[in-house]
Amino acid sequence: MAAQGTEAIGVDLGGTNIVAALVQDGVVRAEHKIATPDTGPDAAIAEIAALVAQLDDSGRLPVGLGAPGQVNEAGQLLSKANLPGWEPPVPLADMLASACHRSDVAVGNDVNVAALAEQRHGAGRDATDMMVVFVGTGVGSGLILDGTLRTGPRGLAGEFGHIVVGLGDRVCGCGGVDHLEAYAGRRCMSATARSWHAVGRESQLVHDGGKRSIKSRVYEAAVDAGDEVALDLIATAAEALGRGIATVVSLVDIERVVIGGGLGERLGAPFIARIDQAYREARFADAPVEIVPAALGDHAGPIGAALLALTA
Amino acid sequence: MAAQGTEAIGVDLGGTNIVAALVQDGVVRAEHKIATPDTGPDAAIAEIAALVAQLDDSGRLPVGLGAPGQVNEAGQLLSKANLPGWEPPVPLADMLASACHRSDVAVGNDVNVAALAEQRHGAGRDATDMMVVFVGTGVGSGLILDGTLRTGPRGLAGEFGHIVVGLGDRVCGCGGVDHLEAYAGRRCMSATARSWHAVGRESQLVHDGGKRSIKSRVYEAAVDAGDEVALDLIATAAEALGRGIATVVSLVDIERVVIGGGLGERLGAPFIARIDQAYREARFADAPVEIVPAALGDHAGPIGAALLALTA
Repeated sequence: MAAQGTEAIGVDLGGTNIVAALVQDGVVRAEHKIATPDTGPDAAIAEIAALVAQLDDSGRLPVGLGAPGQVNEAGQLLSKANLPGWEPPVPLADMLASACHRSDVAVGNDVNVAALAEQRHGAGRDATDMMVVFVGTGVGSGLILDGTLRTGPRGLAGEFGHIVVGLGDRVCGCGGVDHLEAYAGRRCMSATARSWHAVGRESQLVHDGGKRSIKSRVYEAAVDAGDEVALDLIATAAEALGRGIATVVSLVDIERVVIGGGLGERLGAPFIARIDQAYREARFADAPVEIVPAALGDHAGPIGAALLALTA
Repeated sequence: MAAQGTEAIGVDLGGTNIVAALVQDGVVRAEHKIATPDTGPDAAIAEIAALVAQLDDSGRLPVGLGAPGQVNEAGQLLSKANLPGWEPPVPLADMLASACHRSDVAVGNDVNVAALAEQRHGAGRDATDMMVVFVGTGVGSGLILDGTLRTGPRGLAGEFGHIVVGLGDRVCGCGGVDHLEAYAGRRCMSATARSWHAVGRESQLVHDGGKRSIKSRVYEAAVDAGDEVALDLIATAAEALGRGIATVVSLVDIERVVIGGGLGERLGAPFIARIDQAYREARFADAPVEIVPAALGDHAGPIGAALLALTA
């Protein structure tokens, strides 16, 4: 039996899937995954409550939820999540407590809780001042300062993807110019590949990517095949990330950066070596930073949500 | 009589002057200012001890010192200060304790302690998450998160002047390209004005600035006279500062920014309004930030050093 206070249910609410897991001492003991209902928050919370009931025989474990967007201290989702039928504010904590019949619930930003999981149980162990970066469709991050997740007074902290990096004029999904995510987020990189393709700079990425979003594995295959556009995009992504890390170190002084997310995990060690090189070239102080791969993969979300429930 | 624990001696060690003050409840009660000796740290510490003795009849008040450069937790100056004859590491805290015959001494980075002063007793009152920016020869800053000065595990935090702002290719004093300080620090702005002047873009700044550094009051006069180069440089400085603030808000979520320093104080409200405008255009989240002028002027350094001594 687990000691009291080390076991919780962690739920990761994503645009595509909901993953719920029974987490014990930072390890996933059982998990269930379903497609996210497209009919709004009530349906999603009902599904989550059903998953929680399956995972928690006792009916008494704390429940944590990571949600995509800005979450305030009352557990309300304040920003328009990328989910149909969700109109902010959504009182997720209250809805979850009611549906799961317990008061012991906590809700946080999905990226922040995943970062917390990497710090406590993954590639951030023993580091108190660090950043976890998820390089995927977009670029998300969680900043841990003095061992504590930095959320900020309005829950806005950790938007590493939306800092300027001085690399040119590529436009970010948010409309900002020269944001890190415009160079290092898969959605923006894919838009760049398609725009180049349209003017004659062909790439395996566009051929193999089909009409929908170009997946991380398609990037990996194109890099392995020496596709010039893919190599160019990845080199620029690493440059943007290295420069961004230099900005973070100059502002808050961190000692470790964990690189995760779909694209980050697919591209692996060579990508991290390039980010490291770019950081060394861009840094202000002669300050070493360990840049390492994430350790928890897709489990970071539910593990972090469980951590949130245990520490809230 | 002041209650115990509200009175201290604060010393600001600068490249030009040393200012020592008797500080009570965040107010300067008496101060002495002398030229910084150019013969190294022993001479400077001896002068400081003499000033402290003059200000502190009791011989028992705590003494705080703000020094230019990276200071570690042991009170050693680790970086090469802009002072002749200073070779790091300089064990400032030990030297100060010995010369002042007391154990109650504390040493910190000059900009950080001045920021702390503005937060506690100046324009940052009631704000727990904020940044103080000193716009002068260079651009320095102190970041206060959750009411605590963020120094970082290696004392490297707060280098706001050395983040990239995506405005072009101006070179910073540190050699970095596109750093905020390259656009908003007086030394770099003056170099730009001189380089333009040399190729025919004349300016009152260069005419009136003489051969030495162009002073803040010369900038103020040139702006008042409608000098185009001065207006251009100041507009770009405000743009750089506004963009930099957007980066800080995206990363750590702050609610207030205090603008001080020689140039910041001379240019005043119109400059701050421009910074605010640039911030609004560059920001990611729809997050208001109060941008306000500093309140303590040159007293921020000694008041902050005294605070450091009282809270160390």
